Amino acid sequence: MIAEIIAAGSEMLTPFRQDTNSLYLTSELNALGVVVAFKTIVGDNLEHLMSAARIAISRADVVIFSGGLGPTEDDLTREAVAGALGLRLRRDNDVLAGIYKRFAARLMTMPPNNARQADVIETATILQNLKGSAPGQYLDTVAGRHRKIVVLLPGPPGELKAMFETECRPRLKQALPERHMARRMLRMALIPESQVDSRTSPIYKQYEDVETTILAGSAEIQLHFVCVKHTQAEAQKRVNQLAERIEAEMGDAIFSSHGESLEEVVLLMLGMRHNTLAAAESCTGGLLSQRLSAIPGSSRYFLGGAVVYADRLKTEFAEVPKEMIATHGPVSAPVASALAEGIRRRTGASVSVAITGIAGPTPGTGPDAEKPIGLVYVGLAFEGEEPRVAELNLTGDRDRIRFWASQHALELLRRALLERA
Amino acid sequence: MIAEIIAAGSEMLTPFRQDTNSLYLTSELNALGVVVAFKTIVGDNLEHLMSAARIAISRADVVIFSGGLGPTEDDLTREAVAGALGLRLRRDNDVLAGIYKRFAARLMTMPPNNARQADVIETATILQNLKGSAPGQYLDTVAGRHRKIVVLLPGPPGELKAMFETECRPRLKQALPERHMARRMLRMALIPESQVDSRTSPIYKQYEDVETTILAGSAEIQLHFVCVKHTQAEAQKRVNQLAERIEAEMGDAIFSSHGESLEEVVLLMLGMRHNTLAAAESCTGGLLSQRLSAIPGSSRYFLGGAVVYADRLKTEFAEVPKEMIATHGPVSAPVASALAEGIRRRTGASVSVAITGIAGPTPGTGPDAEKPIGLVYVGLAFEGEEPRVAELNLTGDRDRIRFWASQHALELLRRALLERA
Repeated sequence: MIAEIIAAGSEMLTPFRQDTNSLYLTSELNALGVVVAFKTIVGDNLEHLMSAARIAISRADVVIFSGGLGPTEDDLTREAVAGALGLRLRRDNDVLAGIYKRFAARLMTMPPNNARQADVIETATILQNLKGSAPGQYLDTVAGRHRKIVVLLPGPPGELKAMFETECRPRLKQALPERHMARRMLRMALIPESQVDSRTSPIYKQYEDVETTILAGSAEIQLHFVCVKHTQAEAQKRVNQLAERIEAEMGDAIFSSHGESLEEVVLLMLGMRHNTLAAAESCTGGLLSQRLSAIPGSSRYFLGGAVVYADRLKTEFAEVPKEMIATHGPVSAPVASALAEGIRRRTGASVSVAITGIAGPTPGTGPDAEKPIGLVYVGLAFEGEEPRVAELNLTGDRDRIRFWASQHALELLRRALLERA
Repeated sequence: MIAEIIAAGSEMLTPFRQDTNSLYLTSELNALGVVVAFKTIVGDNLEHLMSAARIAISRADVVIFSGGLGPTEDDLTREAVAGALGLRLRRDNDVLAGIYKRFAARLMTMPPNNARQADVIETATILQNLKGSAPGQYLDTVAGRHRKIVVLLPGPPGELKAMFETECRPRLKQALPERHMARRMLRMALIPESQVDSRTSPIYKQYEDVETTILAGSAEIQLHFVCVKHTQAEAQKRVNQLAERIEAEMGDAIFSSHGESLEEVVLLMLGMRHNTLAAAESCTGGLLSQRLSAIPGSSRYFLGGAVVYADRLKTEFAEVPKEMIATHGPVSAPVASALAEGIRRRTGASVSVAITGIAGPTPGTGPDAEKPIGLVYVGLAFEGEEPRVAELNLTGDRDRIRFWASQHALELLRRALLERA
């Protein structure tokens, strides 16, 4: 049972826009036991769309279109799919009345073009759009002697998701053979993909009924497990067995055993220990604080801190002695340590983290002039303990160095909190 | 002259990964006067890949593959394209020797599988890979009586870009009719797309030889102009004429007339006025500082500031009176004003910005309990002037409210700086 997803819209054939609906649709189709074998992006061109529709219907069992259901002349998915299936369009009076009403409710006259949104492929079921005016369409039909399910969904992601959930998923679930899929994700930070693979592959290869995917993301490695069985309990049991064996092998390197982000895990650990956190950031300029504060509820454990980009502010907000900065340079272990301790004291937090480094592209100045781009110091301070500092040598451009520095800071913090379990 | 881009790789048919090479390739092909009409994503499956290759070669003049050139059994692009064109693969001895040498230089034995990377389609030109081991391939051939250009590029973006630039673009440029394309982008923040369209369409519709695209992005509107002429000067002149007329119509709403980001423009304006900036952020938790400090060279004008997430820090770092917070609530105009003035004074900056608001999903507490999620106050303070405050009522989820708040802060700052030109 394979699927093809077709995204219609010329804007997705420019350098500026990308189809993103297919990620959501793939996840939903996978959960129904359907593998996505092809994705096609095609412009607002009837001939191209019809050819793409014909090819997809011939090679896939389930074909999902997104976009091209609007009222303009560029919206051609209805015509293309009808043409590809050799079916006609009929104007649906109920849909038309609904569109009239939408305009009337806003005291507007319906432009004649909008009537096109009421064109429905004969034999198609109409899918209600609760978030917009273009209805979707659902066909369970036969083409070339094979059963084909063809679905037309609107392009705006909010409309597409709402329609898929309430109108499309239940129909697909009923139409497709029952399948039970369990998924789980383990996440690790700052560990090479090759090391993860060499340590985990002897384990996951023993689980042939679980599909394992290793993905290297931004400064983290993800292990995805998927298993399909006759019952949900069976599928979940196999996934959990494998996950537990991998957790035993990788130990503390795994920061998340159910998909949580590193920020979420750190905040959770702070909460469990009744700790509060503050940050002083130089080269990351607020990135670490931004990542932490993006998590809902973070204000209970994350107090804030200072963006000490200018050296003067390192003294003003974190009491780093001026002479220390002049002697060692702002990018140095003593300054990282003093920054961490100073911001902790000033904010009254029980734990603090400080980051100072050279993100580039231009090198440091004064005592930092000879230091390499990518040199970063992370300081950690716990109430009643001596602060400690880690030296990092990061590579890549400014964005990468800044992100990896924030990732290292979170991972060092997580490991320090683990020691205090 | 139309192109199709095919991305090969099963990971791009999962919910976790997306093809991104096609954005770069589209931009490059457009610059050569080639329109991208189809994009296809296909997994590591010989039958599927060969079918996709056959279809693309039949419907497009230029077909560019990315991925599937590695040494593993899943790397099937060579076989698929040879099959689709009815050509054979030959093992190239020079390429093979090169791969042997790469391994020898690392004191490793070449695994037999890697020899597959030396398989070249007969009649193809080999494209050197300066950043990896898989060579590319370039075919200028005839299929179905039409001239077809077929290019095989490696999947890793760094390898693909380097190979395209040095090995592929020059060949395409020579093979394709000479075209001269000029592009330009205008950017506007916080203005509805419909307003931009209704004010600019009477102008850009007069320039039929310039293709105008309006894109609504994250809290900004972009106007893209593209023009193709016989000479570069002619094309540039038309694009500039149109851009200038649109600039005259939209005036100060345009923050960027050559594509710069809002952060870059604000930093540039601060520099021209010999101003320095500091920020105090509550609900955005460092996002605004992070955006500013992400720009190389920002440290000359952006000093930093404080993330005053906890109320106590509003007093500690920006001297907001405790009683003011207790009376009005942290999300209030008086607090925004005091935060802006306080952070300016404490950092010694000449200009400052402060953000306080309710990002959700949970409502505020104490005096803020009745205030709606999305209520945000932005304070601006200039040395020697009374601070001023703008009240915003934003919609959407936490991420959106935070991003829009930072965007409003930057745009308010830009307009305030404009007044002081």
